[in-house]
Amino acid sequence: MEFWYSEMHTQNIKLGFRIKEEIEHVRSKYQDIHLLGTYEYGKLLVIDGTVQMTERDEYIYHEMIVHPPLLTHKAPKKVLIIGGGDGGAAREVLKHKVDEVHLVEIDEEVVKIARKYLPSVASSYENPKLHLHIENGIEFIKKNKNFDVIIIDSTDPVGPAEGLFTEEFYKDMKRALTEGGIISQQCGTPFYHPEEVCKVRSILSNIFEYVGIYLAYIPTYPSGMWSFVMASDEEIKLRRHLDFKTNYFNEEIYYSSMVLPNFIKEECEKY
Amino acid sequence: MEFWYSEMHTQNIKLGFRIKEEIEHVRSKYQDIHLLGTYEYGKLLVIDGTVQMTERDEYIYHEMIVHPPLLTHKAPKKVLIIGGGDGGAAREVLKHKVDEVHLVEIDEEVVKIARKYLPSVASSYENPKLHLHIENGIEFIKKNKNFDVIIIDSTDPVGPAEGLFTEEFYKDMKRALTEGGIISQQCGTPFYHPEEVCKVRSILSNIFEYVGIYLAYIPTYPSGMWSFVMASDEEIKLRRHLDFKTNYFNEEIYYSSMVLPNFIKEECEKY
Repeated sequence: MEFWYSEMHTQNIKLGFRIKEEIEHVRSKYQDIHLLGTYEYGKLLVIDGTVQMTERDEYIYHEMIVHPPLLTHKAPKKVLIIGGGDGGAAREVLKHKVDEVHLVEIDEEVVKIARKYLPSVASSYENPKLHLHIENGIEFIKKNKNFDVIIIDSTDPVGPAEGLFTEEFYKDMKRALTEGGIISQQCGTPFYHPEEVCKVRSILSNIFEYVGIYLAYIPTYPSGMWSFVMASDEEIKLRRHLDFKTNYFNEEIYYSSMVLPNFIKEECEKY
Repeated sequence: MEFWYSEMHTQNIKLGFRIKEEIEHVRSKYQDIHLLGTYEYGKLLVIDGTVQMTERDEYIYHEMIVHPPLLTHKAPKKVLIIGGGDGGAAREVLKHKVDEVHLVEIDEEVVKIARKYLPSVASSYENPKLHLHIENGIEFIKKNKNFDVIIIDSTDPVGPAEGLFTEEFYKDMKRALTEGGIISQQCGTPFYHPEEVCKVRSILSNIFEYVGIYLAYIPTYPSGMWSFVMASDEEIKLRRHLDFKTNYFNEEIYYSSMVLPNFIKEECEKY
């Protein structure tokens, strides 16, 4: 017998993974978490029916949400990650010469599963520079500040993470940033939902001087085309060099990923 | 009841399309051709179990296989398309000020189905500048010449189109090009098969002075990351401006699409 898990990308499109086994299934206070063993992509973390990461392609997402903002900042020392309980974003941040990384994850169960089953992703939890806060990111940001970079590694704009895509939250973030601070956030697929990333850009543009959309190829996410934004009051440009090995990102991609297809540019003109 | 068609991307990954109806099914002398009506992507052309194009995202593939080489040539007048029986590449070529387009498709049934059911793709067959040759491209190229641009819009390097990825074929193409001529070819997904595009680049580098790999996001192709190559004896750079509307491609993408993720660069160092 063959077992398949399929993620519905829309009502009418699905991506199927052939499955070896269900490794773990936890219903936490917040969400339904599955960890599956797949034949093609290694371990697959699914939350509320949505693919969060696979061992085989997680490096693309995590490199792209971390290295562009970190290399835009001239000397990032204190970094905040909101979400990202699997630890992948923290792992990439810790490749830079930072002093402290604060990871604010609402759901402790995600952290537990990652630490138990995904050591290549969650390794950074062993690093003394990493401070884990099991807390709602929206509350955390109101009480804390002096971050050079804030990375919002959450689920999509439509759903439980909605509050992380609002003007109020972005204003709290801005207050929590140091001068020259920068944020990055994942914004879903512009192929199926170009309006989402354009709305985020529009809201951020009311609060920050510079906002840039950028893209990456993520094979296990809907459409394979994924968007991120960076926002700062200082110009978005490469201020430092990459001095460690990466599998996807490089300094040329810093700029090329900001080049958008016409259909996204046209959509964003509406907002 | 719900009906789904799933393409196997590998043995262990599949993309499923929810289907309204089977519009046409023809077993031609060469291949098994299905045209399906889908809910998400409009009409879907499947040949021998492989997605060839959908009405919703075909513009990305066709713009990207055509406009980069056409804008690299200083004044393309005579263009050859090998494969591309659906007519999409020809439609894009005819947006440029060319004199003649020769389309060499081995399978007349593909042309018939496209002309009957895919008017938005096959419209160029009505253009008097388009000359259709129902013939094997490998034979055609030996007997014809004086093309400014040759576009190889075939199925993948592994399978029936294998002969279109060989040194012998590339030498015949070079002989058939005018001075300053350029070719483009689709090269499959570098995420699942980075070795394929690297091999093509390596073979072409023995024959042409300049060879460049470039990428595009194609949601309905395996992994969503698709590769193409351009090859010429003149430098690969933008020599003309785009003077018509496009949905994906633009002049910045001409260059940004040539920026490759590290994992592809590293694979290509082996060849």
